[in-house]
Amino acid sequence: MSLVAVGTMAFDAIETPFGEVDKILGGAATYISLAASFYIRPVKAISIVGYDFEPHIIESLKARGIDMEGVQVKTQEKSFFWAGRYHNDMNTRDTLITELNVLANFDPVIPSSYQDCQYLMLGNLAPQTQQQVIERLEKRPALIVMDTMNFWMDTAMDSLLKAIGMVDVLVINGEEARQLTGQYSLRKAAHQILDMGPAFLVIKKGEHGALLFHEQEVFSAPGLPLEEVFDPTGAGDTFAGGFIGYLARTGDTSFENMKRAVIHGSAMASFCVEKFGPERLMEIDQRMLNERIREFVKLANFNL
Amino acid sequence: MSLVAVGTMAFDAIETPFGEVDKILGGAATYISLAASFYIRPVKAISIVGYDFEPHIIESLKARGIDMEGVQVKTQEKSFFWAGRYHNDMNTRDTLITELNVLANFDPVIPSSYQDCQYLMLGNLAPQTQQQVIERLEKRPALIVMDTMNFWMDTAMDSLLKAIGMVDVLVINGEEARQLTGQYSLRKAAHQILDMGPAFLVIKKGEHGALLFHEQEVFSAPGLPLEEVFDPTGAGDTFAGGFIGYLARTGDTSFENMKRAVIHGSAMASFCVEKFGPERLMEIDQRMLNERIREFVKLANFNL
Repeated sequence: MSLVAVGTMAFDAIETPFGEVDKILGGAATYISLAASFYIRPVKAISIVGYDFEPHIIESLKARGIDMEGVQVKTQEKSFFWAGRYHNDMNTRDTLITELNVLANFDPVIPSSYQDCQYLMLGNLAPQTQQQVIERLEKRPALIVMDTMNFWMDTAMDSLLKAIGMVDVLVINGEEARQLTGQYSLRKAAHQILDMGPAFLVIKKGEHGALLFHEQEVFSAPGLPLEEVFDPTGAGDTFAGGFIGYLARTGDTSFENMKRAVIHGSAMASFCVEKFGPERLMEIDQRMLNERIREFVKLANFNL
Repeated sequence: MSLVAVGTMAFDAIETPFGEVDKILGGAATYISLAASFYIRPVKAISIVGYDFEPHIIESLKARGIDMEGVQVKTQEKSFFWAGRYHNDMNTRDTLITELNVLANFDPVIPSSYQDCQYLMLGNLAPQTQQQVIERLEKRPALIVMDTMNFWMDTAMDSLLKAIGMVDVLVINGEEARQLTGQYSLRKAAHQILDMGPAFLVIKKGEHGALLFHEQEVFSAPGLPLEEVFDPTGAGDTFAGGFIGYLARTGDTSFENMKRAVIHGSAMASFCVEKFGPERLMEIDQRMLNERIREFVKLANFNL
């Protein structure tokens, strides 16, 4: 199965109670692609970066099975930059700086070698851009998964609803599900979102795990209690990457297999938060991932 | 197996976004006993009430298999009274009124027929009172489960730590676990609490379920996504009642069986929040409980 991942590739500055970094690799497509590359290669990335996204970074991503042909490099501009500070509870954060740079005029280009795309992951981006990617694919992928955030609900709701109506799986967090629907109950919110078009909805709950909704079915994946959450940046994107990577590898979009995909996404995300940015994703191997998956099984397993 | 449940029996006034009641049956021992009575009868209650706790209320509890011999009735005083208002998110509340009344001088009396107690549930009360109950039992129960709250951490920490050191299972919520230990990570907090004495720790997370810790083991029980949380009052006590009721019925305190007990407690609590106070617990039957347990199995089940 072939997988295309769309989103930002960027630099972040991050402050947490444990320390800070002033420039680290970031961006939704980066995390998605790194996570998905544990399941399927190549991961065909679509993004845009600037002159500061140096060749050695591009090479390091290629070395992990990420196809960079769809990543435009603008030699006169800088890459997207985000700076944020996490509060002590690590669940809330302040955005300190957002410099769009190359992202201000992102017109996604789809290389012809990406046109066989069967699994499409739309990372958080302007919903118009997400729509453009779908429209520029000659054939609709077998499965389209989309992430978004509250910013687009505040500024581009019509366009967002149109994009949501075009996808198979929406992946958002609990607060976003509530804002999108005006429903406090996540079950009510979920059914309202499923009525907007997607056949599946994943609600991410951070340390509390994730919920998967489909028709009248619901599945609750646990959150692994960690000794320490060091930096939550990219955890949601990493979840999405593990989720669609697993689906693309197995080629099975049944509810039962989506449940497994949620567990794989959760396991990947549980690694992501253990170090700054994508550092931990760069360290782990297949054996560690398998071990972490077994921890999730043990965590959730009971027999009546 | 014989089960003794200690705690308040009281009246509550409750305001939620859905409505209000100015006087409804409440109290930790009430919820614990009602929930446990689905698993084992009699539930031997220890509490104290006033002249306003009318005979028909006592009879209605007796009719549900609750032994009221250990409930002192003070004919010159009123029952404990609590009034609270829930915020829109239903996760936070303001206490509007606390009238201790009979509770101000609660000196627990243990009827001789309670001395065979094998399972003891210490509902939230002053930790000195919880200690007194343990000390007044001639023989230590096979299993002591204790609930508490942040109020005792603020006002009686030494006494609370002593009580915690005397029990087998502590049941608290996430914020309380953090306050008790000063650790934000629930895994770190859990290991610190297990070092205080209890062999097991349950951390309740409301709509996000519950965690069970024992030595290096951890189990995550899901929270059932409900259409509506109508009134969360008593949900924690109801959880505790279902938890210890299941353990007392099965007579098995292994980690595997504790996991099942957490699921049963969670299922009971999921009913509690569907109506005001203990109303819903008064309506449900064994068939509905079994159906709810099956929903939890379906909710959490996955196979890799």
